[in-house]
Amino acid sequence: MSSEVVQKAKLAQAAAAIMNKMTTAQKNEALNTMANALIENQQSIIEANALDLERGRQQGTASSMLDRLALDEKRIVAIAEGLREVVALPDPVGELLEQFERPNGLRVEKSRVPLGVIGMIYEARPNVTVDAVGLCLKTGNCVVLRGGSAALESNRQIVSVLRAALEKTALPADAIQLIEDSDRASVNEMLKLNGLLDVIIPRGGASLIRNVVENATVPVIETGAGICHTYVDESAQFEMASDIAFNAKVQRPSVCNSIETVLVHRTFAESSLVRFAERFTAANVELRGCERTTALLPQAKSASDEDYATEYNDYIMNIRIVDDLDEALAHISRFGTKHSECIVTENADNAARFLQEVDAAAVYHNASTRFTDGFEFGFGAEIGISTQKLHARGPMGLPALTSTKFRIYGSGQIRG
Amino acid sequence: MSSEVVQKAKLAQAAAAIMNKMTTAQKNEALNTMANALIENQQSIIEANALDLERGRQQGTASSMLDRLALDEKRIVAIAEGLREVVALPDPVGELLEQFERPNGLRVEKSRVPLGVIGMIYEARPNVTVDAVGLCLKTGNCVVLRGGSAALESNRQIVSVLRAALEKTALPADAIQLIEDSDRASVNEMLKLNGLLDVIIPRGGASLIRNVVENATVPVIETGAGICHTYVDESAQFEMASDIAFNAKVQRPSVCNSIETVLVHRTFAESSLVRFAERFTAANVELRGCERTTALLPQAKSASDEDYATEYNDYIMNIRIVDDLDEALAHISRFGTKHSECIVTENADNAARFLQEVDAAAVYHNASTRFTDGFEFGFGAEIGISTQKLHARGPMGLPALTSTKFRIYGSGQIRG
Repeated sequence: MSSEVVQKAKLAQAAAAIMNKMTTAQKNEALNTMANALIENQQSIIEANALDLERGRQQGTASSMLDRLALDEKRIVAIAEGLREVVALPDPVGELLEQFERPNGLRVEKSRVPLGVIGMIYEARPNVTVDAVGLCLKTGNCVVLRGGSAALESNRQIVSVLRAALEKTALPADAIQLIEDSDRASVNEMLKLNGLLDVIIPRGGASLIRNVVENATVPVIETGAGICHTYVDESAQFEMASDIAFNAKVQRPSVCNSIETVLVHRTFAESSLVRFAERFTAANVELRGCERTTALLPQAKSASDEDYATEYNDYIMNIRIVDDLDEALAHISRFGTKHSECIVTENADNAARFLQEVDAAAVYHNASTRFTDGFEFGFGAEIGISTQKLHARGPMGLPALTSTKFRIYGSGQIRG
Repeated sequence: MSSEVVQKAKLAQAAAAIMNKMTTAQKNEALNTMANALIENQQSIIEANALDLERGRQQGTASSMLDRLALDEKRIVAIAEGLREVVALPDPVGELLEQFERPNGLRVEKSRVPLGVIGMIYEARPNVTVDAVGLCLKTGNCVVLRGGSAALESNRQIVSVLRAALEKTALPADAIQLIEDSDRASVNEMLKLNGLLDVIIPRGGASLIRNVVENATVPVIETGAGICHTYVDESAQFEMASDIAFNAKVQRPSVCNSIETVLVHRTFAESSLVRFAERFTAANVELRGCERTTALLPQAKSASDEDYATEYNDYIMNIRIVDDLDEALAHISRFGTKHSECIVTENADNAARFLQEVDAAAVYHNASTRFTDGFEFGFGAEIGISTQKLHARGPMGLPALTSTKFRIYGSGQIRG
């Protein structure tokens, strides 16, 4: 009489013992087989996706959301290609991290092992389903997927194709589990599955992540929320500061590593803020500012503390003029979410202080915060960007999906 | 109008910004100053401890508990010596873990940084207070201590001495905070202090740890519970198997890395179980066994599944006879807590399978599980033994008290 969630988590746990024994070659073959299967079965996936899209349209879902949900041949080819790229990445499992011998002759090895069973809780982007499966299986893990209900038909068909593909390989099909119960209770049940799930990774908006962090008893890797800043120091070059801040705000405002606020040193503001702001206004970025900013920029509205504490994910940006680096650091400490922060400066001492003192996953000198990304860092893959300090911090590649194990080789040693 | 817990956590958070800038030399000087202060003020600490002991006696506290609580000159000298030993250990903060350059010229460095503010929730051993302070401060962290109420007077005096010592150094006294509110509500308040505490480390009995894991929204490093096994394989040498199992059970039954159950291959049992068991019975270890065991050993009671799932922490041990390695692995998978597991065998294939397939922090071939310990592993210190798979697994030394930060050096790079 156990629920779908418990039943499927138990199947995944049983499969984890098999996954733990799979070689890199076996795992790679499975990923390639799954990639082929996605291409061969793309028609059935597109048909299932059409059902999700139709339901979404009937429910009045926003077109930007429908676009994230939509699959076509081109997108499925790209998703399959993503699996093949993971094949090409080195397998972290088995990597020997430490090795030492104790005076009593005990030989200790610490090496990477799979985490076990990973719970993924995410929203309505079906590509995340395949990405998560590829990354989890490559690292010898099983995955219990709980995607958004808006993508349920798509996810069902994708998982059916992927599981059927695994049947042709050494990997157990039960390594992939999809929770089809779209009631929120199924999420909350996953959050308490200590002993069956080893970790939960939430991916999605702020409210999804907050629900996971506040209710999970299973260990969580928190991802996401980014209130990021660019601080333009007194000695910043105008062109560089303008390019970096504009890129960080405008290139893709909806993502976590884009910025919400520019902090500007008063000397730079006096000489250049009007010209600096023009480019944003021309790009239809709504500006909100401190009192000194609104005095200089007629187009800027007044910014409140609430504005400074908001992740807009939109064409809105705060500007605050500060007297010095200390004031900038204090603002970031108060309003930042420890994701990505940048200083633009020609002053090496100020850059060093900023990079040392700002408490964030990624701290930049003279580069856009938009680079906080597993692919941009060269990891070849990304399961998310950790905004917590435990286990992994910043962009997470394959090693973040592993734990470690001590193996100790003795010849009868006992403790005295 | 904020509580003691919030007020003190905020003081710690403010101090964390200063701690983040301290050099290794400054931190070591502070640890030495604290060690000296403990010796100089031992009389005041012993007096405060006497109040705790007196209250404990009046409340009918067990003598074993009173012994853990008691401080005398010798113990204080040992505690101070522990601080000096931490001084001698390498400082992990600042260690460069990765460094790479991207094709666009971005230079990325990943290095160790302090976690920030660590919440310690523990029971009535005042030495943990000093140990935790030493390890947290050496790694540039602040610590919010919530010890057991039975040790409140002792902890108050110790923390007062340590904070006064810090006043003479570069480190902020506010890096050490003691929660004096002995109501359990103060613990539960700590568990929800996201944004003020970066991690909580519980140390204590099963119910304390369960409360933390079930109620914390702050990330937790779970420590503790150990249902550990020794599997005596068909080819095990009798003397070695006897020594290892006896050491793992009897040397210190109250700790997490002692064993609760011995699994014995049927061939070994047929030839040697009677002799194997005699040594335990002679040492007053109560034996409980499966049906085949009780048939061989008249002194053994019958063991239930509940027995196999109990961490006795006492002179009680289960014995179960198994047909083969698979049955031993299945038992450990069902009843183990993923702490420490051992196989005694002369068969290299079986040893390799056991070390690969058992999912635990530490897996031993031919050595006692009692070695799962930061000092025995040569880490020079231990903040606890992690029984979870995230962040750290097994004995945790100083590096487990750090996180990482990416520092990215650019020359105006923006994302295309």
